[in-house]
Amino acid sequence: MADSLQHKILLSEDEMPTRWYNVLHDVPTPPPPVLHPGTGQPVGPDDLSSLFPMDLILQEVATEQYVDIPAEVLDVYKLWRPSPLYRAHRLEKALGTPARIYYKYEGVSPAGSHKPNTAVPQAFYNAKAGIKKLTTETGAGQWGTALAFACAQYDLECEVWQVRASYDQKPYRRIMIETFGGTVHPSPSDLTEAGRTILAQDPGSSGSLGIAISEAVEVAAQDPATNYALGSVLNHVLLHQTIIGEEALLQLAKIGERVDLLVGCTGGGSNFGGLMFPFLREKWAGRMYPVVRAVEPAACPSLTQGTYAYDFGDTIGLTPLMKMHTLGHDFVPDPIHAGGLRYHGMSPLISHLYEEGHLEAVAKPQSECFAAGVLFARTEGIVPAPEPTHALAATIEEALHCKESGEEKVILTALCGHGHLDLPAYDAYLSGSIVDHGWEDADLQAAVRAALENLPTLV
Amino acid sequence: MADSLQHKILLSEDEMPTRWYNVLHDVPTPPPPVLHPGTGQPVGPDDLSSLFPMDLILQEVATEQYVDIPAEVLDVYKLWRPSPLYRAHRLEKALGTPARIYYKYEGVSPAGSHKPNTAVPQAFYNAKAGIKKLTTETGAGQWGTALAFACAQYDLECEVWQVRASYDQKPYRRIMIETFGGTVHPSPSDLTEAGRTILAQDPGSSGSLGIAISEAVEVAAQDPATNYALGSVLNHVLLHQTIIGEEALLQLAKIGERVDLLVGCTGGGSNFGGLMFPFLREKWAGRMYPVVRAVEPAACPSLTQGTYAYDFGDTIGLTPLMKMHTLGHDFVPDPIHAGGLRYHGMSPLISHLYEEGHLEAVAKPQSECFAAGVLFARTEGIVPAPEPTHALAATIEEALHCKESGEEKVILTALCGHGHLDLPAYDAYLSGSIVDHGWEDADLQAAVRAALENLPTLV
Repeated sequence: MADSLQHKILLSEDEMPTRWYNVLHDVPTPPPPVLHPGTGQPVGPDDLSSLFPMDLILQEVATEQYVDIPAEVLDVYKLWRPSPLYRAHRLEKALGTPARIYYKYEGVSPAGSHKPNTAVPQAFYNAKAGIKKLTTETGAGQWGTALAFACAQYDLECEVWQVRASYDQKPYRRIMIETFGGTVHPSPSDLTEAGRTILAQDPGSSGSLGIAISEAVEVAAQDPATNYALGSVLNHVLLHQTIIGEEALLQLAKIGERVDLLVGCTGGGSNFGGLMFPFLREKWAGRMYPVVRAVEPAACPSLTQGTYAYDFGDTIGLTPLMKMHTLGHDFVPDPIHAGGLRYHGMSPLISHLYEEGHLEAVAKPQSECFAAGVLFARTEGIVPAPEPTHALAATIEEALHCKESGEEKVILTALCGHGHLDLPAYDAYLSGSIVDHGWEDADLQAAVRAALENLPTLV
Repeated sequence: MADSLQHKILLSEDEMPTRWYNVLHDVPTPPPPVLHPGTGQPVGPDDLSSLFPMDLILQEVATEQYVDIPAEVLDVYKLWRPSPLYRAHRLEKALGTPARIYYKYEGVSPAGSHKPNTAVPQAFYNAKAGIKKLTTETGAGQWGTALAFACAQYDLECEVWQVRASYDQKPYRRIMIETFGGTVHPSPSDLTEAGRTILAQDPGSSGSLGIAISEAVEVAAQDPATNYALGSVLNHVLLHQTIIGEEALLQLAKIGERVDLLVGCTGGGSNFGGLMFPFLREKWAGRMYPVVRAVEPAACPSLTQGTYAYDFGDTIGLTPLMKMHTLGHDFVPDPIHAGGLRYHGMSPLISHLYEEGHLEAVAKPQSECFAAGVLFARTEGIVPAPEPTHALAATIEEALHCKESGEEKVILTALCGHGHLDLPAYDAYLSGSIVDHGWEDADLQAAVRAALENLPTLV
């Protein structure tokens, strides 16, 4: 009977995990340290204290296996968590595959993605430390939305510098940030020295994430009551996201299912790490043996085509140096629609695990990803954000292999957000105006080579 | 402890109701019949068979208390149903009220509102009858989105005429309809006699819902394999929506809570009836005694200021005559942002129940509603659609009365959709450019008086 299929595996609020998992406790070899660009020495807590509260700095270098989630954070999480795990029966049927496809859906959050999982604790720890305002940058706007919502929960001000091009072209995200009570400035702005410098050179500048970071960091560094918040890449961000994977393990256990393949998209790595780290713990403990696969855009292939080297996290070079897979800090990806994946580097933790052979990576052109997104929308009823359509494309590819081989593989994919505010990207795809950029493209190869020549020489 | 609060009351898929509730079985007095405008006689099934399949025509006049939901519909419902019931702890805290506020959230559906609850069975029954295509009209686009999704589930084509002004100004909904596989035409179009007639008179016409209905009905009437679908007002539409109220009753029973006040917004009445009808059954059976309150926009006050009379459902006068609260079929409401509430009439069933004293009604200006929506977003994390902000405004008003009186009233409100595609309306509110139109407005009174003069004279 059609009505006997179970589509959603739910957890009650009582069943929600109360601890984050710290993968640093279990990685077989420790990752390389973060270095101060001036001295070439590992950075210490004091180097970071003008921007972050001590609780987060300590989480960045924590070595215990679990970190308790504060009660005040759990209470806000429960506005949308535990998030549902879905069995994609109708997608499977459309594909005619014997594979069983599951997706963990983070689009139920206030911002519509996984970002509030870390925005909420970051706002909480800052408020606890007496901070009154958080600054940040945002491109397409997911992170700014999440932080604005989080700040509203703990009576913090939230000031967001949004890349001018996005501010002008995609006003929905800016409005959502303002609805949650945040303030948004187009970047470059005349509110900072960095912004004024850029505007003096180019009054019509459309901005970049690098410039927006500089503005947000400058404002945070000048005021002791103001801190800065980052939405991906760093260890404490990935720590907070592990609630995704912990929930998924509980949900799969409820139905007695064991996963053969885990698939997630990677930009900075926080959604991917959040789902995968608890599964890697289980794998290292010999309790399951899933293949773990990262999917990145062919136009920004940091894992599959980048170099593993020390590089800056931002374009201008204000951050400490992190050893990571990078396309070079001044590499500018083509303007693909998955804005959340347009990052030159990769989380140092994910990079280390990749280098050590704990995960594999593939790159996908965006037209294949949107085709997967449209099929998913029509069968499962959720229009995915452009970012997770990369994971869906790789999931569908595997499910079609299973159709040929007859294998009943169990695939779990991370559906990290909905695409309600990304509909113009679907319009471009449906009207045939999507352009693919990939590694076979000589221009892309030349751009990466040029950017890699600008890697820093350590003192 | 903050973390001991339960925010969501969930049902498993196994607990989902498998029957719709037919309020016609229990209304103390039967509502007046629908009349043929030419003969003045009650319409029969044959009068409707060129537009609707017999299963739906029979549901329109059904008298049994319950109608079984087909297995094929239950399977699609389970993509998002049962929908969550929330306790609004954080809103209550912000208000400082002793009232307990619950909201039933329909924004988890594929279209982001309650509309798929009826779009899915309408598409199913049409497919079962051998129909190949459904046509419909849409204004802002919620209904068109829901029907496009539903048609994709049963391999039906879906053709939507969208009011030209919305088509041009609000492309996100049009793109979402296309992503689900629907075809969208701006109305007036040159594809129909009705559209060509309008365009000949006014080549730059920005359209109206009435014109769009004429185009969709014309196309459906000409082709035996094509039918037409309506998203509100009719009895079978409200029947399908009763799954909302049936679920809410089960959810409240789980936590042993009894409701004192039910609040919902009314446009055509389907979201409101869907939540309220099962509660009215319980009230008539003497098992609970909730007050039932409809909230309509002050700019379109059909219940509080309209006349109870026979009128057309559309502007041009193609439909049968329904006895309902109406502002006159050629009344054109001011362009408020709650597009789903801009309807001159009210469901005949809701109108009858109002006339018989089973529910009360209030009207709210949109600025008060957006203020409620912003407070709700910042406390509960969901940006509501402009339509349910009307119910939220009335809910907050009551909760603040409780703060004064000390009463621990239990309030349940219908949060029938999210506002992700309505963010420009929030932008208008936050920037201070919202204009209120209400009954004290002499222009509005004059417009309603003029429209009421055009009520039909029955033969």
